[in-house]
Amino acid sequence: MILTVTLNTALDITYRVRSLRPHASHRVQEVIERPGGKGVNVARVLAALGHEVTATGFAGGDTGRSVRDRLAGTPGVRDALVGVGGATRRTVAVVDELTGDTTQLNEPGPQITPAEWAAFQETYVRLLASASAVALCGSLPPGVPVGAYAGLVRTARAAGVPVLLDTDGEPLRRGVAARPDLVKPNAGELAELTGSHEPLRATQDARRRGAHAVVASLGADGLLAHTPEGRWRAALPARVHGNPTGAGDSAVAGLLSGLIEDLPWPARLARAVALSAATVVSPVAGEFDRGAYEELVGRVAVTDETWAA
Amino acid sequence: MILTVTLNTALDITYRVRSLRPHASHRVQEVIERPGGKGVNVARVLAALGHEVTATGFAGGDTGRSVRDRLAGTPGVRDALVGVGGATRRTVAVVDELTGDTTQLNEPGPQITPAEWAAFQETYVRLLASASAVALCGSLPPGVPVGAYAGLVRTARAAGVPVLLDTDGEPLRRGVAARPDLVKPNAGELAELTGSHEPLRATQDARRRGAHAVVASLGADGLLAHTPEGRWRAALPARVHGNPTGAGDSAVAGLLSGLIEDLPWPARLARAVALSAATVVSPVAGEFDRGAYEELVGRVAVTDETWAA
Repeated sequence: MILTVTLNTALDITYRVRSLRPHASHRVQEVIERPGGKGVNVARVLAALGHEVTATGFAGGDTGRSVRDRLAGTPGVRDALVGVGGATRRTVAVVDELTGDTTQLNEPGPQITPAEWAAFQETYVRLLASASAVALCGSLPPGVPVGAYAGLVRTARAAGVPVLLDTDGEPLRRGVAARPDLVKPNAGELAELTGSHEPLRATQDARRRGAHAVVASLGADGLLAHTPEGRWRAALPARVHGNPTGAGDSAVAGLLSGLIEDLPWPARLARAVALSAATVVSPVAGEFDRGAYEELVGRVAVTDETWAA
Repeated sequence: MILTVTLNTALDITYRVRSLRPHASHRVQEVIERPGGKGVNVARVLAALGHEVTATGFAGGDTGRSVRDRLAGTPGVRDALVGVGGATRRTVAVVDELTGDTTQLNEPGPQITPAEWAAFQETYVRLLASASAVALCGSLPPGVPVGAYAGLVRTARAAGVPVLLDTDGEPLRRGVAARPDLVKPNAGELAELTGSHEPLRATQDARRRGAHAVVASLGADGLLAHTPEGRWRAALPARVHGNPTGAGDSAVAGLLSGLIEDLPWPARLARAVALSAATVVSPVAGEFDRGAYEELVGRVAVTDETWAA
């Protein structure tokens, strides 16, 4: 199975309002709830692609119960979340019906105790024993040490399990130094890590810092991969329009499934770009549209940039 | 005991953000959760005043569990909520730290089935048997008939229990026609009910429509009471500043406690005005400041307007 780790799981709530006006009172027209957090989103996409997935991380309180109830209704995803005393955070996305724009409110997440963090690490080691790959995704809740991902990367490598890291800031910086097989920063995260706004140079620098392979997601410009096997750029010929929520998580799922199927890099990248675009165009935020994916995957242009300046 | 009815209970969530900007992403600095809905707020204030209170209405789902857990930690309030299949609504208040302003997002509430509504009515009749007064407060969740409050008013009157109604729109219009002992509309609700923006005339009209007594809450202008015993205006000499959340519910608690203690109208009104103002000035939204209440209650000016034009 593929293991996804979401230390800061979330109950993702979407509110549809007629028009968001600061300092006014709003009647919410529609409420949608989903289990969330980057690794949970990756797990859902992997399961939809037919993979057997186990989702671990933390869940607690009444919001954690909501997350687990909804995860139980997601075929193909096994719940291996570790219970905690604090309550799983909520994220609230307020969609303005007039403009289509979204205003996002993200709770920080529960305080994790040292004992809970130790219990998670035991669970992680146990789950790694039957994992073909692991994805470490998203922010850290309060109480989890900033070097947490670095430790989880080392444990995965010691167990011989390929490990993908998708986070930002100091946890990314430390995690990269622990030599993960793959990191997938977006343009902002990559610039923050390397100090360079030039993607070719920045991906190279990220490898120098320890990542075996780097795939940078550059929004409408697609993906830029810098790997031991070469360098590629993958993009659709035209920009797709829609809601970018979850597009990065779908790209991670595409890269991970390509890795365990041992696809060549160009095919992995085409899959990741198409899944990402099929998520942007989907009418349901954060879900990918299967028909769009199947149509788009053949239209991704992958160019070899191994010898680019 | 005093019975409060909250058909559309809520989990009231307050988010503190640095500055709310539409279409941006926000890290929530602080999350506060409270059991809410008007009748629950009234119950909390009555309990703080030393009354024995029972709170009924509906609660369901993980949010309903949060409401009940928090109610269990409120001394003096007995939980007699009726379980339902749908989830209790959330209200989200986003407080902007820069301006101090609040943006409110209110979910509609769960769909109540006919069987759940019937179960509530049985509970209500049973609880009325030991109630000295009952307050019917707030909006109706989907599925509850628009004439619900009218029926609950008639049942209370048949049981000989004084009944206060605090709602708006069509449920208020129908409820008033069922002859409640007291209604407490604010200026907007009163104008909507009667078609008149002139409070003296409008309170008279509301009595003509069936309410035995009417106490209109007019914000900084205090309370205007039109009763079989006479007509009074009660207000503080100077406006108080702060957060008006829950001020109306505190006024209801003051009126209700004055009723069961059989205080003369001027003393009831002074208590209601002081509790309301002590809620506005309280540092905690929706709670009243006891020290402020005790200081303010002696400063409320009550003028007899029985013979006013």
